[in-house]
Amino acid sequence: MSRVRVALDAMGGDDAPRTAVHGGLLAASPDLTVLLVGDQVAIAEELTRHEGLPGRGHVVVVHAPDRVTGSEDGARAARAKPDSSVVLACRQVKDGAADAAVSMGNTGAMMAASVMHIRRAPGVLRPAIATVIPSGGGYTVLLDAGANAEAKPEHLRQFALMGRLLAQTVLGRPEPTIGLLSIGEEPERGTEMVQAAHQLLRDVPGFVGNVEGRDIPRGTVDVVVTDGFTGNVALKLYESAAGFLFEEMRAAAMSSVRAKVGGALLRPALRRMRDRLDPDLYGGAMLLGVRGPAVIGHGSGNEVAVRHAVEVAARAVRENVIGRISAELERLPGAALA
Amino acid sequence: MSRVRVALDAMGGDDAPRTAVHGGLLAASPDLTVLLVGDQVAIAEELTRHEGLPGRGHVVVVHAPDRVTGSEDGARAARAKPDSSVVLACRQVKDGAADAAVSMGNTGAMMAASVMHIRRAPGVLRPAIATVIPSGGGYTVLLDAGANAEAKPEHLRQFALMGRLLAQTVLGRPEPTIGLLSIGEEPERGTEMVQAAHQLLRDVPGFVGNVEGRDIPRGTVDVVVTDGFTGNVALKLYESAAGFLFEEMRAAAMSSVRAKVGGALLRPALRRMRDRLDPDLYGGAMLLGVRGPAVIGHGSGNEVAVRHAVEVAARAVRENVIGRISAELERLPGAALA
Repeated sequence: MSRVRVALDAMGGDDAPRTAVHGGLLAASPDLTVLLVGDQVAIAEELTRHEGLPGRGHVVVVHAPDRVTGSEDGARAARAKPDSSVVLACRQVKDGAADAAVSMGNTGAMMAASVMHIRRAPGVLRPAIATVIPSGGGYTVLLDAGANAEAKPEHLRQFALMGRLLAQTVLGRPEPTIGLLSIGEEPERGTEMVQAAHQLLRDVPGFVGNVEGRDIPRGTVDVVVTDGFTGNVALKLYESAAGFLFEEMRAAAMSSVRAKVGGALLRPALRRMRDRLDPDLYGGAMLLGVRGPAVIGHGSGNEVAVRHAVEVAARAVRENVIGRISAELERLPGAALA
Repeated sequence: MSRVRVALDAMGGDDAPRTAVHGGLLAASPDLTVLLVGDQVAIAEELTRHEGLPGRGHVVVVHAPDRVTGSEDGARAARAKPDSSVVLACRQVKDGAADAAVSMGNTGAMMAASVMHIRRAPGVLRPAIATVIPSGGGYTVLLDAGANAEAKPEHLRQFALMGRLLAQTVLGRPEPTIGLLSIGEEPERGTEMVQAAHQLLRDVPGFVGNVEGRDIPRGTVDVVVTDGFTGNVALKLYESAAGFLFEEMRAAAMSSVRAKVGGALLRPALRRMRDRLDPDLYGGAMLLGVRGPAVIGHGSGNEVAVRHAVEVAARAVRENVIGRISAELERLPGAALA
């Protein structure tokens, strides 16, 4: 595939369309057309600010008369606003006008819109949201981060296969290790559903057994598989814990003159660390198991985060993650489908 | 109740019985007898090191010929080793020789031993492990942190009532706020079980609705209610995230000469911060809903952490947390029991 087309929700994100348009322009190239979906007047105005950027000739504006804000109930808004930019971005994929969709806006709305409007890939029982999080092992794939509140053992087995492919293609790990999230290492620990999933996962290449909550920050495995309820709680807790600790650290660095001097000297090193751990910079989440990759970035991300999210979506298209997921599910159909 | 008796597993913890015996002696007083349960020869030897401590006259040694180590599968070991110190500590409560039990050793073993040997309190459907974690709001009670992998809506409602009493008595919050952990604020978000629990929790005083993973570090509510699977994943993830970020911070402070100087100046302030957030110092976890409080500390805690855990157990006895839980459950029996 020579030319990839990514539909970007230009009205998503804290200061939309400013940052989204800027990031889209940074990503656009002769190989990558970016469809800027949103209020055409506002987008056109932003575009005039960046006439000199080389990407300027590789963006297309798609008008969307409505938008979903960050404070709305995303799932509800995605249903109630069929002409919103996030819904129309996903519809570009459904209609064949784009190969992938990206939004930096309301996470719930993007999840709901992509599940509603981008059809499931062949062989996939349930799509899953995969997120790439910083960890002691570099980066770890966690899925499902919230596409489905409930999961069956066979779903978790498919999540494992999908996460494995993502780790191979996006993280570049040839033989990723996979763990099933539970509350003890033994196969008989956890809920009945998790115990049954453990048995089904045994034939998934790279499966090392159960892992615990502590293994997520440690990066014990490349891929952590769980249901969307637990995964969503874990992801939001992890992001928020990092923010809480950075705040506490900042307060500590203001607590005395000595600490202030120390903090000032340490700042560049801490900023590099924060950049590595910053959720805005590691590409957000991706909905797997649908016919076109859907990438969900963080609303507070800057233009570099937007570019990164668009490029992750394009890479997933070029690497044919979707086609390979279907092929893999066909090759290893699993006990419940056999 | 003038005199409280706490059975302490003297063989639990990283360098047992040294730290456990020392901490037990620090807690023991005319109002608080500490039963040191473990190898009587090793305990007697440790006691000779602290002849001058005032607590010396208020400890009793109870011999236990066996012990569970930190690396064993706790639940299995608690069943396989009926003469281990952790099991005998819990049996002191069952037999009426102690009012509460404390272990700083294998968490799984203490959970299993206390659930097996300390009987359920009247009206309680399922005991729950409550843990007090540092947060933006000071401290937050999270339960169930892993006593039961599966939960029903009525169990979560009882957990809410138990957590409320713990926040009142141990955290000193007269009117604690309570949130149900889910993946969205709306009552219809989450699994079917969580949605049903939301309806049942509406009559619990202080219930504010659903909270998300991010609300745990933020301390949005005083009490977070969840099933033992999700709660255990969340607790272990949170503790490990803190450890991971401290490690990253240490590495950042070694990355250049400038950063090293800054780190050295900042160290006292960061140490105070770490002390506040250190899981070893905030009293561990408590099994609620059994006839005697069972406190589970962290294996790496020092003697101050041991003393703190013993004192938390004693306070729960003096405040009659157990009796008040039964009274509260009787007063608000709930839809499913009505």
